[in-house]
Amino acid sequence: MLLKELGEFGLIERFRRAIKLDSSVVKGSGDDCAVIKWDKENYLLFTCDMIVEGVDFLADTRPELIGRKALAVSISDIASCGGIPRYAVVSLGLPGSFSAEKAEKIAKGIFSLARKFEINIVGGDLSRAERIVLDVSMLGRVEKRNLCLRSGAKQGDIIFVTGELGGSIAGKHLKFTPRLKEARELVKNFKVHAMIDISDGLAADLSHILKESGVGGFLYEEFIPQSKASRNLKDAIYSGEDFELLFTLSRNDAKKLLDAKVDYCKPIGEINGKRPVLRLLDSSGREKIIGPHGFRHF
Amino acid sequence: MLLKELGEFGLIERFRRAIKLDSSVVKGSGDDCAVIKWDKENYLLFTCDMIVEGVDFLADTRPELIGRKALAVSISDIASCGGIPRYAVVSLGLPGSFSAEKAEKIAKGIFSLARKFEINIVGGDLSRAERIVLDVSMLGRVEKRNLCLRSGAKQGDIIFVTGELGGSIAGKHLKFTPRLKEARELVKNFKVHAMIDISDGLAADLSHILKESGVGGFLYEEFIPQSKASRNLKDAIYSGEDFELLFTLSRNDAKKLLDAKVDYCKPIGEINGKRPVLRLLDSSGREKIIGPHGFRHF
Repeated sequence: MLLKELGEFGLIERFRRAIKLDSSVVKGSGDDCAVIKWDKENYLLFTCDMIVEGVDFLADTRPELIGRKALAVSISDIASCGGIPRYAVVSLGLPGSFSAEKAEKIAKGIFSLARKFEINIVGGDLSRAERIVLDVSMLGRVEKRNLCLRSGAKQGDIIFVTGELGGSIAGKHLKFTPRLKEARELVKNFKVHAMIDISDGLAADLSHILKESGVGGFLYEEFIPQSKASRNLKDAIYSGEDFELLFTLSRNDAKKLLDAKVDYCKPIGEINGKRPVLRLLDSSGREKIIGPHGFRHF
Repeated sequence: MLLKELGEFGLIERFRRAIKLDSSVVKGSGDDCAVIKWDKENYLLFTCDMIVEGVDFLADTRPELIGRKALAVSISDIASCGGIPRYAVVSLGLPGSFSAEKAEKIAKGIFSLARKFEINIVGGDLSRAERIVLDVSMLGRVEKRNLCLRSGAKQGDIIFVTGELGGSIAGKHLKFTPRLKEARELVKNFKVHAMIDISDGLAADLSHILKESGVGGFLYEEFIPQSKASRNLKDAIYSGEDFELLFTLSRNDAKKLLDAKVDYCKPIGEINGKRPVLRLLDSSGREKIIGPHGFRHF
């Protein structure tokens, strides 16, 4: 069977079955970060992301933006677990015919975002490769009480999203600012039940939350905030790389958040039902089941 | 300027100047692992290694061996800092036309070595790529007193190496067992001043120790253990990917090690001189300066 037939998630599922973990691992594969015991107050978060020429950026993408994106996607993963990014290592594969100046610009994109978010770039690996490839692994810290996983959504929760969705391919996917400040504000002021960053698309990532939490949910079509760059509602629901936060709060906390007029968060739906099914409700109350379609590598 | 003109180490040097680190980082880029403060007794070790089709293995290399190598090189880095590998994340880039069975065999190579060394594979990233690329990031633990860096070699130290050198390209580079057991035995029983694993080649990696320690050194030509697979002495000195341990001990500890008849370690030279120059002495006492030549990506 070819990878494109089995699919990305099919392969990952097969991988996961082969993994053995000891008791120091709080959460292994299957969330935005792995969670490892650290000290009395904190967990260690560990995540990696590979970005590849022709898939995540193009050969003529500005090199600073390539470096920037490589780091930004990992910061977004740490943020969506409620943590603070601290350390990163960067592997970089480049062709021999690549210009040293361009390589330095990739590095500049990494280092300037690292400085902005106070992340220590503590190591790396440089390799020859036919096409540009970057891999960033990042470590973060999260207070035990602030840890957010995909699996915490509860019946009756309100579903929120930050910012606006869709059309990221027009540029946002290279220039987004990871929602770290917002994530930290949320976990400090509310009991966030479940959180994920939207990388595969709203429908796909909300489906991850539903599946891991063992609950159903529905979205109010008219409440989904569409970005100006999105072509239509479908684009806002299914297209990937928005890197916005998608999270759920109890009704009480939801009311508190709405009363506080936190302008970057919008309620878009509710957790309801015991089967992990996602429904879309239009303004006249008609509902349809929507699949977890979104961006997939295979 | 092209990368192949500036060279791998030239580019890395340029990168390093741009890095800012906070006081929680004991050692950043420039050793086998980054070293980060963890708790009262231990440091956290953090390393990454990227392996690429056509450079580190071939398209028709047995897939289990590809996965195995990706993990083994990082274990070797943790070992050469004196530590114990604990957690890893794996990024895997594969073509869409790749077979799912072959992908599972790559994973099998990773997981079976992980089980052998009791390493938790806690996460990963799967991406589409034109050619096979793997990146492993690994975390390890090392007791503060057992940390080994490249920078600790001292005047009068004896230089040792484990195993035999050269000819790794014939197969060892895909099948080597990382010298973790040996490294832990060494750091527990001796005060290892400096240690590195031989990935770029004996001359290149010993030069890293000399440079970082600010000392000179010489090798006794006749003492260098040549593997059967090596074509000649030059091959044993300059070819990469032996993944043996290269380390220095005080004369007292060296005597202890020799008396203990630790059969996997051979003395091959001495630390001598204040300038980081490496000399080779032949059996009739003639010496020549040898350069830090070895495997380079650019």
